Amino acid sequence: MKHIACLTAAAATMAGGILYVASALGQTDGDASPIYGIKIPAGYRDWRLISVKQLAGNKLKQLRAQLGNDIAIEAFREGKLPFPDGAIIAALHWNEASSELDNQVLAAGFPGAGLESVFAGSAVNVQFMVKDAKKYAASGGWGYADFTNGKPGDQALHEKCFPCHVPAKDHDYVFTHYAPTP
Amino acid sequence: MKHIACLTAAAATMAGGILYVASALGQTDGDASPIYGIKIPAGYRDWRLISVKQLAGNKLKQLRAQLGNDIAIEAFREGKLPFPDGAIIAALHWNEASSELDNQVLAAGFPGAGLESVFAGSAVNVQFMVKDAKKYAASGGWGYADFTNGKPGDQALHEKCFPCHVPAKDHDYVFTHYAPTP
Repeated sequence: MKHIACLTAAAATMAGGILYVASALGQTDGDASPIYGIKIPAGYRDWRLISVKQLAGNKLKQLRAQLGNDIAIEAFREGKLPFPDGAIIAALHWNEASSELDNQVLAAGFPGAGLESVFAGSAVNVQFMVKDAKKYAASGGWGYADFTNGKPGDQALHEKCFPCHVPAKDHDYVFTHYAPTP
Repeated sequence: MKHIACLTAAAATMAGGILYVASALGQTDGDASPIYGIKIPAGYRDWRLISVKQLAGNKLKQLRAQLGNDIAIEAFREGKLPFPDGAIIAALHWNEASSELDNQVLAAGFPGAGLESVFAGSAVNVQFMVKDAKKYAASGGWGYADFTNGKPGDQALHEKCFPCHVPAKDHDYVFTHYAPTP
């Protein structure tokens, strides 16, 4: 499941610029995640949408989007399991935000419906699953990475990734399913 | 604001195939929206992510994603207002769904945090805003379209689009803002 250790981080206002500096390796400059050695993939904000989620708890409310690189998207659409090497799934997490104007418009437009909306506010963190069946054989064929403000979380955080994903073994350790096209 | 007249529609399981049949005009086959004459743009499910939302009311809970074509994404990223002609924003709406397995994993992984997740379930509808300052001068430069199961809503539904968006006039009638890159 998604790791939430770094939920209080402020928005990574500088990260956006860094992410578009693609290197020859398809990774940004910067530190790699412990254990797995994964850097932030260049241009991941341009990847296509897999699905969206909300995570709510006692102390947090997040909206989330899962994006996939081309290999991942193709595998999701074709129901290809296990995912092929090279597939990368990105999970973008934001704090929920709301707008009084939006909710006033909803109330006026749909009286009595009790409608309220929330949307992606400040950025929290971004996580990646990178498929390489040989390199990451000890963790189900997936490497993991969790970045807050462009910096990877520590080793203790990354040790939690694979055990948490084991219950999704029947779907190649991936909890997310592809959202249907409306 | 988003129109919710067709919320009870079942998932458009057949729509996915149709949407990838791109025509020379960049539109799928099928009916056009009343008033504005907009068909479903080919391949919109491949567009890049603008932001995500949740809409909750007495009778519904939806997760939503806004995608943009290249012109729209560039304008959002550069803060370009008004949006240039050719910009298209797609709003994909799903009923919320949940998984007992997901929530069990959250409870085990983060004891006491009270975490629960919901994700995009069955498709509800998809809406488009198409920028053409001259063609759609009477509606703020935007044309509107709302499709459920690939079929456009009726004229009464589409008459509500522009008045609902007027409160967002300062952002060129667009409620959605670009979600920061984590």
